Amino acid sequence: MQGLMQDWPLLCHKILDYAAQQHGRREIVTRSVEGPIVRTNYAEIRLRSLKVAQRLARDGFREGDRIGTLAWNTARHLEAWYGIMGMGGVYHTLNPRLFPEQIVWIMNHAEDQALFVDLTFMPIVEKIAPAIRSLKKVIVLTDAAHMPASALTNIVAFEEWLAEADGDYAWRELDEKAACGMCYTSGTTGDPKGVVYSHRSNVLHAMIAVQKDAMGIGSTDAILPVVPMFHANAWGLAQSAPMIGAKLVMPGGRMDGAAIYELLDTEKVTMSAAVPTVWLMLLQYLEEQGKKLPHLQKVIIGGSACPRSMTQKFRDDYDVEVIHAWGMTEMSPLGTLGTMKPEVAGLSGDAQLDIKQKQGYAPFGVEMKITGDTNDEKPWDGRTFGRLKVRGPAIARAYYGGAGKDQFDPDGWFDTGDVAHVDANGYMQITDRAKDVIKSGGEWISTIDLENLAVGHPDVAEAAVIGIAHPKWDERPLLVIVKKPGREVTKEQILAFMDGKIAKWWMPDDVSFVEAIPHTATGKIQKTTLRDQFRDYRLPSP
Amino acid sequence: MQGLMQDWPLLCHKILDYAAQQHGRREIVTRSVEGPIVRTNYAEIRLRSLKVAQRLARDGFREGDRIGTLAWNTARHLEAWYGIMGMGGVYHTLNPRLFPEQIVWIMNHAEDQALFVDLTFMPIVEKIAPAIRSLKKVIVLTDAAHMPASALTNIVAFEEWLAEADGDYAWRELDEKAACGMCYTSGTTGDPKGVVYSHRSNVLHAMIAVQKDAMGIGSTDAILPVVPMFHANAWGLAQSAPMIGAKLVMPGGRMDGAAIYELLDTEKVTMSAAVPTVWLMLLQYLEEQGKKLPHLQKVIIGGSACPRSMTQKFRDDYDVEVIHAWGMTEMSPLGTLGTMKPEVAGLSGDAQLDIKQKQGYAPFGVEMKITGDTNDEKPWDGRTFGRLKVRGPAIARAYYGGAGKDQFDPDGWFDTGDVAHVDANGYMQITDRAKDVIKSGGEWISTIDLENLAVGHPDVAEAAVIGIAHPKWDERPLLVIVKKPGREVTKEQILAFMDGKIAKWWMPDDVSFVEAIPHTATGKIQKTTLRDQFRDYRLPSP
Repeated sequence: MQGLMQDWPLLCHKILDYAAQQHGRREIVTRSVEGPIVRTNYAEIRLRSLKVAQRLARDGFREGDRIGTLAWNTARHLEAWYGIMGMGGVYHTLNPRLFPEQIVWIMNHAEDQALFVDLTFMPIVEKIAPAIRSLKKVIVLTDAAHMPASALTNIVAFEEWLAEADGDYAWRELDEKAACGMCYTSGTTGDPKGVVYSHRSNVLHAMIAVQKDAMGIGSTDAILPVVPMFHANAWGLAQSAPMIGAKLVMPGGRMDGAAIYELLDTEKVTMSAAVPTVWLMLLQYLEEQGKKLPHLQKVIIGGSACPRSMTQKFRDDYDVEVIHAWGMTEMSPLGTLGTMKPEVAGLSGDAQLDIKQKQGYAPFGVEMKITGDTNDEKPWDGRTFGRLKVRGPAIARAYYGGAGKDQFDPDGWFDTGDVAHVDANGYMQITDRAKDVIKSGGEWISTIDLENLAVGHPDVAEAAVIGIAHPKWDERPLLVIVKKPGREVTKEQILAFMDGKIAKWWMPDDVSFVEAIPHTATGKIQKTTLRDQFRDYRLPSP
Repeated sequence: MQGLMQDWPLLCHKILDYAAQQHGRREIVTRSVEGPIVRTNYAEIRLRSLKVAQRLARDGFREGDRIGTLAWNTARHLEAWYGIMGMGGVYHTLNPRLFPEQIVWIMNHAEDQALFVDLTFMPIVEKIAPAIRSLKKVIVLTDAAHMPASALTNIVAFEEWLAEADGDYAWRELDEKAACGMCYTSGTTGDPKGVVYSHRSNVLHAMIAVQKDAMGIGSTDAILPVVPMFHANAWGLAQSAPMIGAKLVMPGGRMDGAAIYELLDTEKVTMSAAVPTVWLMLLQYLEEQGKKLPHLQKVIIGGSACPRSMTQKFRDDYDVEVIHAWGMTEMSPLGTLGTMKPEVAGLSGDAQLDIKQKQGYAPFGVEMKITGDTNDEKPWDGRTFGRLKVRGPAIARAYYGGAGKDQFDPDGWFDTGDVAHVDANGYMQITDRAKDVIKSGGEWISTIDLENLAVGHPDVAEAAVIGIAHPKWDERPLLVIVKKPGREVTKEQILAFMDGKIAKWWMPDDVSFVEAIPHTATGKIQKTTLRDQFRDYRLPSP
């Protein structure tokens, strides 16, 4: 027996229709790429998105076409997204921080038909466009007056192109499971893998994100998404903000402390979202300038672990709540958020920071479990860790073209590649990457825990732990240390420092001192390279 | 091109799975029908719901079976709902306030296979059970010790019946569009009409309801749903509270001021939802007893229009925010909620009450329009009114068995039967029922506006306005008045009082004084009867 409720497919452009009708005059403020602060609203963005859709259709682009965007967070980028989706296309966000040859590889793999690009990235496009076999058109997100000289053909200024449309267009009627967006995730090994969002997954993800205990946003909020639309879907804010009619403040290309502070202050921003690096720059700026944050109520911090001191500084010095979050491109991206359940809501001081250091708990729509080597489910006791697996309506079931099949369990769970524990209240904490964890005698040792402990020693600048093959225990930990300039410390002193703070069998079998530890472009320790460097190393005999 | 996101159907029992895993120890407190306050939590409710599903399946009930519930808001009623849904059945809530013959008609129309019933309603069941042709089993929501003597066969105490199951049961895998619940709506004319909710519509409705600007609830809330599960789906709270892990406080059969106050106070309730009558009783009790409401933050008031004085009293005397809401059984039921957008958030005093007197605005997932006689869309100017039509994923597209077809437009809109205007900020106000509105010379006159104005006269106890046939204008308004005891007032005095407060052409053509105005069982003016009484009435010549 079927229900008798309306067939009302979950389509992204319905979010924009809603925002235009119920919150039409709510502002979207952008620090434009050309320089000035510019203002528009949801009603105008909807009209211009309709024009984008109309114009794309007139240019011959069709349902299912992938259309790239290489752009900052701006109102025009929003219009491009909604226009692409509304005519049945698939926005494909490109990360300008990748090497040009990676962008070429990704665009060719996705077969992008057109590209919306910011002025900032024109030098990249000039270089790569000829190598994109499917590319038919480049639309520069500016007006005629700011158009740069270009060697490319089929290139046009957004405003000129848009002026040829009147917006008399009906959004394409689509299946809610149709693709609407695409983002490639680049691991440390192998080719990038494409995640394909559907209209349904984006709408449901936004509905999950706006909840009081998730991002907790409403129409009286002014939201500054520093997290870029080209990275992990801007944490869904391009959909969730219009869904509840919040004001949006778009930072364009400037993410330095002074620029972010200016927007927070003049636009009375109540909520913002960014990776720790951005907040580090802002906090430094605030201290140097002696500024405060009277309007800001909370910041969502994710992308990498938020340092405890950052959470504390925001709380104690600026009266701003940090919500630690974790997610992945494959999860649209929200997975967990560190808001306070009643079990911990009364905590303050250090006890509160202990909870806030964890990555938070999953809202409805994200199922979590942690499993051992045989896919056996581990208890939620805050100590036992396992591979973190997730399931939900906004989580990938495959990569574009079928790559990375081993990350998808036959029973529908996505293996995040992270190792975590979950406490009895449901708060999750990442303890390692699965490929880095050390398997010793059938038990797991967290390299991140060992590293965090080792860097607590006053003479240690940086620490990395890798597993070394061992005849009896399979693997044993080797601690690699970079000393602070001018400091001296011995293996014995390091181990003595760690002794008693961890289980005996977690103690590294050896300590090796090096000049430098290899890093990725985003500053993470490159453990594959480190393992290569220690390929011929042998642990000392016991 | 399809998205590559997981197939994760929106099923109601996933809400309970979520609550049990992430908020398992959150309390559900019930004033039991047997008397004492009893406590359970989401983990226990899930286990017992699994037992209900297992037990129903063992008794031979099957996917799609309609199973009635005639019960108060209690934890057991929740377990019955989730158990029924989880084995693929359809909970069918019955309103005990209907006449027994109406309940019989409804149960036979739905072909209910079993019935969960509270002790309170056993006298009704004893009377009607033999007339329900499809009824195979009656499960009394109590334990063996409290089982009443009964002439019925196939009757069992819930706790005994449940004790035969161990809960080792897997929720049935279902299409998200499968029916999960049913509720009949009884208009003033014709047979009751059945609304059939789907798993998808209930889940999406809950996701809409929990939003910050809708009900705005989270895990630190304690929610008292006075609005019964047997009426309009308890405004969705049986799904939305577990979705965000809120504590639930269930009032059982006692809705008087003292009983509600006791729960609000001892259970530190932060949010509650009920019709105005319940709040009238509570406010009277508080005043008599000199009590305050230190924990309560907000109340959702709907079902009928919330009086301005009630909103003011809650705000000024108790520091409680009233959120005026409107909905219908056909809408799951939420349609609009009167939270404050930034355009009006700064208002206070009378200006704030002006907004709060309206029924609020629609969240994402509810589309609204107002139309004239030719389905022409009317502007949102806060004055022009029209038939209120709605569209959305939790709104009916048909009634069970195909009744009431004329309420469903071919283009997918549901005609609410209400007449309303919407202001430029999107706030809607009901001005009449479509069948009551007076059509004069092609224009509409709101009978509710005229009635509200007339009862403002100090000598008027009650007023009703009906349309009287008119040779030139089609219809003209007749004002029917009940004087206050011991007061005297003339037609001329009433009309003079109204003059200048409304458009000239809205002025009633005549005033008729009566001893009493007919009412429905729920206290609404019975305009059909009133029109019958004035069938032979002729308007005075001008």
